[in-house]
Amino acid sequence: MAHALRLAACGLYTTAPNPRVGCVIADGETVLGTGFHQRAGEPHAEVFALRDAGERARGATAYVTLEPCAHHGRTPPCADALVAAGVGRVVVAAEDPFDQVAGRGIERLRAAGISVETGLMRDAARELNIGFFSRIERGRPFVRVKLAMSLDGRTALANGDSKWITGEAARADVQHWRARSSAILSGSGTVLADNPRLTVRRASNSLSPGAAGGEGWGEGAALKAGAPLTPPSPPSELGGEGFKPLRVILDRHLRTPAGSHVLDGASPTLLLHAANATPAATRSAHVEYASVPEQGDALDLHAVLALLAARGCNEVHVEAGRTLCGALFAAGLVDELLLYIAPVLLGSEAAPLMNLPGLTDMASRWSLQLLDQRMLGPDIRLRLRPA
Amino acid sequence: MAHALRLAACGLYTTAPNPRVGCVIADGETVLGTGFHQRAGEPHAEVFALRDAGERARGATAYVTLEPCAHHGRTPPCADALVAAGVGRVVVAAEDPFDQVAGRGIERLRAAGISVETGLMRDAARELNIGFFSRIERGRPFVRVKLAMSLDGRTALANGDSKWITGEAARADVQHWRARSSAILSGSGTVLADNPRLTVRRASNSLSPGAAGGEGWGEGAALKAGAPLTPPSPPSELGGEGFKPLRVILDRHLRTPAGSHVLDGASPTLLLHAANATPAATRSAHVEYASVPEQGDALDLHAVLALLAARGCNEVHVEAGRTLCGALFAAGLVDELLLYIAPVLLGSEAAPLMNLPGLTDMASRWSLQLLDQRMLGPDIRLRLRPA
Repeated sequence: MAHALRLAACGLYTTAPNPRVGCVIADGETVLGTGFHQRAGEPHAEVFALRDAGERARGATAYVTLEPCAHHGRTPPCADALVAAGVGRVVVAAEDPFDQVAGRGIERLRAAGISVETGLMRDAARELNIGFFSRIERGRPFVRVKLAMSLDGRTALANGDSKWITGEAARADVQHWRARSSAILSGSGTVLADNPRLTVRRASNSLSPGAAGGEGWGEGAALKAGAPLTPPSPPSELGGEGFKPLRVILDRHLRTPAGSHVLDGASPTLLLHAANATPAATRSAHVEYASVPEQGDALDLHAVLALLAARGCNEVHVEAGRTLCGALFAAGLVDELLLYIAPVLLGSEAAPLMNLPGLTDMASRWSLQLLDQRMLGPDIRLRLRPA
Repeated sequence: MAHALRLAACGLYTTAPNPRVGCVIADGETVLGTGFHQRAGEPHAEVFALRDAGERARGATAYVTLEPCAHHGRTPPCADALVAAGVGRVVVAAEDPFDQVAGRGIERLRAAGISVETGLMRDAARELNIGFFSRIERGRPFVRVKLAMSLDGRTALANGDSKWITGEAARADVQHWRARSSAILSGSGTVLADNPRLTVRRASNSLSPGAAGGEGWGEGAALKAGAPLTPPSPPSELGGEGFKPLRVILDRHLRTPAGSHVLDGASPTLLLHAANATPAATRSAHVEYASVPEQGDALDLHAVLALLAARGCNEVHVEAGRTLCGALFAAGLVDELLLYIAPVLLGSEAAPLMNLPGLTDMASRWSLQLLDQRMLGPDIRLRLRPA
């Protein structure tokens, strides 16, 4: 199963909106066939593994990281393919929560007389598809907020200058997190202040399996136990065609200037605005507009995430200013904090990490749990989730 | 020499104002005698090691972490003792910068026909006595500033509440850094706000060699290469008699209230004030007063450190508020930052890490170098020095 999970991770950057799934067909210790899902619309992991194993699959055991599908989507049901190939036993890491599967794949296998076991390395399998599970089970994407700060918790000078707090290694690492996400979320304030591109850039060395890529998958600990039989290769098209997370700008009053990088067509862009704002007649062909309900003096963040989930976004990567990050955090909508800390001090007049409401007692502080930490050149990366 | 350094570290908490020194007498791989300096006024490391080796010292090699003394202080010169014992060779890690030694110990050994080598593990030997070297070479103590903060760089709520940001393991770790210091420096603002004790407390488990104690010495990396032959034992008197760093309060206007913990006599206290402030007639017997020149609207920090150096303070541990910490840092007087980070957010209205002047360009930010990081329960400890 560890091998199957490593294979599944090969689809890290490409399977969205589908989950990352790997499959190994084995007879005892002998691997007969392997496969992983690469891209929505293309065959699932089980199909590749069965093709690889050929006739040898008969009577063998199939290890699948996610319950085989039982429905005709863009491809025929994998449960049927496993039955047809005559496998003797199927081991499933995690059950598929998707309505059209949800136990039916397992039922179909058992009905065909195949022994099915579930739960082996389930946590690692769910972690690998944390966004997919979030979307199906909670109706919203998994939200990861990236912030770069100084030791004293500052993200920019008082004059707004923030280039650069962290070093090259940290900035290259960010590309992986952008790359694995379905959408990159920001606000019009950031667009106006920094004019970011919010695309995935392929930096030198940053995508070799040994570099940050390996860690970027977020399931390291669980997989280290199982020897990595096939080191996952970096997606060759990273930064090329077919690898363009949706840029989503919260732009209530449609303030994004016409020449902004986010409107340049390098990646698709979605501008979310209030109902009373009207997109200009001369819209860009690459840019989509949608209105979202307001709540107070901002767009309703729950509605924003529901809209993104409806569009199939599994993981949303947030690179925004202290207002939007603070609002997401205070609303309990941040699932993970990706914090890059540079060993510098910017001083008490510099900009704070996030705008969060004032507290009057220590008991009401926001607690997080540290998932991992690592060095990136001189900088420290902390990954945290609400406790 | 690694063994001698481990021995020297056994004096970590007790030798001040003297340096921590260890000595191993060996014949090839065979250790014949060991010793370390325990306390000013008592015999030096070489004397203990020679006593331990006895007659076997004749012709053997002595490994000493600091150049043997050549002067009659409170004890006779160690160089003479080594000559008298007939050792054949002396290996010295670091030269002693103290005026009355400064090469004369080595000269005296060579004059007696003993072969002397210097520089083996010199960096580790200097690191172990970083405060002693600072006092002798720079005329001021080594200044270590301890701060506990949230992820967003906040040290207290807006209402001043700061109990507790970090957990028990972090607070226990702080005791080691207090314990190894000659003085604990704070300001009257902190005394008025928090009424701290600023004593060394012996917390359960906190002083076993395997716990934070081992790391607290600050020379871990250099010593790990050499096998720790003798695990240093925690000082038995820690928290008892004879183990009381001087509490130094910068109290320009003598605002420290009569009932403050720092005046309780649990440890000696020195109140530093401006020349125009006059100590009350009813002084406490445990408290000493001294006036220091002012600079601008505060006491002259250079004068404060010079005064502490003159009193034999090697390492000064600072636990103070954002004003004093910021002033020390901005004046370039902070040699090390001991930063405890709790995985919590306190929000943008909470108190900043240090009051530092505003910057207008990123090039003028304060850069530090990360020495080490470790987990203390849920908290992270970073140790940094100005780059």
